[in-house]
Amino acid sequence: MEFSNGDILVGEIIGTAILILFGAGVCAAVSLRHSKASKAGWVVVAFGWGFGVLAGAYTAGPLSGGHINPAVTLGIAIDTGDWDQAPVYVLGQMIGAFIGAVLTWLAYYAQFGANEEPTLGIFSTIPEIRQPVANVVTETIATIGLVLPILAFGLTEGLGQSGVQTLIVALLVVGIGLSLGGPTGYAINPARDLGPRIAHALLPIPNKGTSDWGYAWIPVAGPLLGAVLGALIFKAAF
Amino acid sequence: MEFSNGDILVGEIIGTAILILFGAGVCAAVSLRHSKASKAGWVVVAFGWGFGVLAGAYTAGPLSGGHINPAVTLGIAIDTGDWDQAPVYVLGQMIGAFIGAVLTWLAYYAQFGANEEPTLGIFSTIPEIRQPVANVVTETIATIGLVLPILAFGLTEGLGQSGVQTLIVALLVVGIGLSLGGPTGYAINPARDLGPRIAHALLPIPNKGTSDWGYAWIPVAGPLLGAVLGALIFKAAF
Amino acid sequence: MEFSNGDILVGEIIGTAILILFGAGVCAAVSLRHSKASKAGWVVVAFGWGFGVLAGAYTAGPLSGGHINPAVTLGIAIDTGDWDQAPVYVLGQMIGAFIGAVLTWLAYYAQFGANEEPTLGIFSTIPEIRQPVANVVTETIATIGLVLPILAFGLTEGLGQSGVQTLIVALLVVGIGLSLGGPTGYAINPARDLGPRIAHALLPIPNKGTSDWGYAWIPVAGPLLGAVLGALIFKAAF
Amino acid sequence: MEFSNGDILVGEIIGTAILILFGAGVCAAVSLRHSKASKAGWVVVAFGWGFGVLAGAYTAGPLSGGHINPAVTLGIAIDTGDWDQAPVYVLGQMIGAFIGAVLTWLAYYAQFGANEEPTLGIFSTIPEIRQPVANVVTETIATIGLVLPILAFGLTEGLGQSGVQTLIVALLVVGIGLSLGGPTGYAINPARDLGPRIAHALLPIPNKGTSDWGYAWIPVAGPLLGAVLGALIFKAAF
Repeated sequence: MEFSNGDILVGEIIGTAILILFGAGVCAAVSLRHSKASKAGWVVVAFGWGFGVLAGAYTAGPLSGGHINPAVTLGIAIDTGDWDQAPVYVLGQMIGAFIGAVLTWLAYYAQFGANEEPTLGIFSTIPEIRQPVANVVTETIATIGLVLPILAFGLTEGLGQSGVQTLIVALLVVGIGLSLGGPTGYAINPARDLGPRIAHALLPIPNKGTSDWGYAWIPVAGPLLGAVLGALIFKAAF
Repeated sequence: MEFSNGDILVGEIIGTAILILFGAGVCAAVSLRHSKASKAGWVVVAFGWGFGVLAGAYTAGPLSGGHINPAVTLGIAIDTGDWDQAPVYVLGQMIGAFIGAVLTWLAYYAQFGANEEPTLGIFSTIPEIRQPVANVVTETIATIGLVLPILAFGLTEGLGQSGVQTLIVALLVVGIGLSLGGPTGYAINPARDLGPRIAHALLPIPNKGTSDWGYAWIPVAGPLLGAVLGALIFKAAF
Repeated sequence: MEFSNGDILVGEIIGTAILILFGAGVCAAVSLRHSKASKAGWVVVAFGWGFGVLAGAYTAGPLSGGHINPAVTLGIAIDTGDWDQAPVYVLGQMIGAFIGAVLTWLAYYAQFGANEEPTLGIFSTIPEIRQPVANVVTETIATIGLVLPILAFGLTEGLGQSGVQTLIVALLVVGIGLSLGGPTGYAINPARDLGPRIAHALLPIPNKGTSDWGYAWIPVAGPLLGAVLGALIFKAAF
Repeated sequence: MEFSNGDILVGEIIGTAILILFGAGVCAAVSLRHSKASKAGWVVVAFGWGFGVLAGAYTAGPLSGGHINPAVTLGIAIDTGDWDQAPVYVLGQMIGAFIGAVLTWLAYYAQFGANEEPTLGIFSTIPEIRQPVANVVTETIATIGLVLPILAFGLTEGLGQSGVQTLIVALLVVGIGLSLGGPTGYAINPARDLGPRIAHALLPIPNKGTSDWGYAWIPVAGPLLGAVLGALIFKAAF
């Protein structure tokens, strides 16, 4: 790999923090009262998360290649067979996701201060219908839809090496949100769900409600399983 | 052609499956109950399908050039005069479309399980006003609006050879959805309609309603006619 | 100029026809009953027109450079001092705009057949508040916002020579629609308004209402004035 | 620097005027009565501002590099250590922002003439919950989310040197609006807020309401603080 461990750690912390700042931010924007985007709808959520990928991945690009997602790191490791730096990536992603959630809380500090309803949905995913197997399957399929295209895109333009490449991945994430986010809210990224869930548990938000730890394994297991399947399909087909 | 028959078959299966996963997925997202995108509106549908094209065509690109639509394959065959591999493309597209519909059903398994209303609109197109000639004309015109620009775009950047090219085709499809999807739901792709219709007929969805086979020829005939006309206009004008 | 008169004529006819097919199409989609996009809102209208520019300008690019707007042709002629082919451009744009309006009518044939309300707004612009001077000023400012950036963009990437360039112009038109379309519906293109208005007067649409010829000079005069001012600002500043 | 002071001044005036014409324009479009985009929602606002950045920054590019924001100028000056031309940039941005606000008023002249409600929200930002410290923190975080990615993007493609680069910054601004605009309306640009506020105070708009000078320091101080922090993070991390 071309990146030093230090650069990877810093890059993934910054990139994932930006991703979550935008992603949790857009969930705060549409679901908190006293927000100009209150109830602005699903199209706003999907584009907000997608442009968070754009901002985070492109910012982290020069330092780490901009994975900002353990599922992407896992898929690339399976594809390349190079696992040495994967733990550094994931460490940075978890730290960054936590920091991004705290920044979102600060950016919406006044809104959270006036909060009267459960807030977990701003930080982490909640399924519409709670059926563990079905929820894992949804997250697995959605993550295949993320990891397989990313690996294939790398064949054409080199992974994370150009603005167009990063833009297309960002729009891919918009698409996953629009199309496959309906059942579970599309974690498709273990750090994106777990880091902000820890932040939700720790932050002093009035009336914040449960952090729903019973569900927490699903948006970790599903995306990891999807990354494995996506990478195996890629290796078999390409 | 530069692609082997095996690569074309695999590429078109994967690419078309991703297209339908995103496309049928977004229709499920906005029309099923217990979905976070429920009733999110036409802009979500159009962008979901367009970014499905982005994901599917760009993924399939290195293996097959990413047609993922028999109308595109037909238009290119008329333009180039090379028909040898067209049947392989169409076979892959039909298989992929079927697989994509099954994946959508799995991704929305819990939602389909609680279903109480007709679901064909998630899988295949249904006209707002049923008038066969007018419906064929709509699909023909919309497909001219797809195939003619794609052939012309190829003059500038080479078909499916760059991310920008694929992105522009994807946004073109968003535009067709927004502008010309009103009357028939814009199949503009025989495999996109027929493959998922077969899946709809076979899948064990409660209260799924009719698969409407009487209409099934229109979203096949219209797009094929549009591809012929689009390619002929291209050959005459360019 | 590098294009023959014949290519320019054909290119502008095709490109402008596609522009109007998408643009009038999206107005039909949101305003006619029995359309899947019925009442889908302003964001759909603005993106539909913008992606119509993408499709039309990029398709016409290899033949004519893809002006598809007399205001753009006028601005370029003032900038370059080369007026020889401008009449050919405008002739093609007017013919294309008329054809595009007829194609839209065919694509929405069943919907128009069931029509019970005035339809001019599908074809041409109607001001929200009818004040000729204010309406001309709005169209003039909006067209400066089109022509001045297009001329400046040409400095960076060459006009109409790349997909990115055309994509940015298309998104610029989305932006004009979102931001400056409120008062008059943003013609910013004399052919876009006049060609479809002629078609509206001629087409056999039930209950189609007035073609409002008293307003027709404003979406011609405003954009032409804006093109002159935009080009003069460009020549003075760059 | 490669740009002359005269070119910088003219470029920033033109670019910032276009930014505000689009940005204040979209706020007018959604909030004034008798506008076709009336109540079109937050997604329209965010894309309108973002495409205003696209239009303004890309137009100004050849003359000044297209900062069109004192926070961007400040961040670049801290990064490069070159402060010589920063005052020229800021002077142009302030003049341009004022001109853009006047152009917006002219474009919506008939609508403003019929106005019966407070109009400051069209020109400048108003917080949803008025808490000075929280409001400054929101603007600071949102501006870090602008300046840090812009500086990092410059590593990959060179700042303002390509259409893709400018497009990505524009979509970044769409994302900031969607995700972080909820609490304060996201000034993230001192000139964007202060220039139009001065115009609001001066323009003869019926029933225009207060210009709210007590809040005016926050959308100046927050973005400048964010620019400093964003640039310091960049210098430390990259």
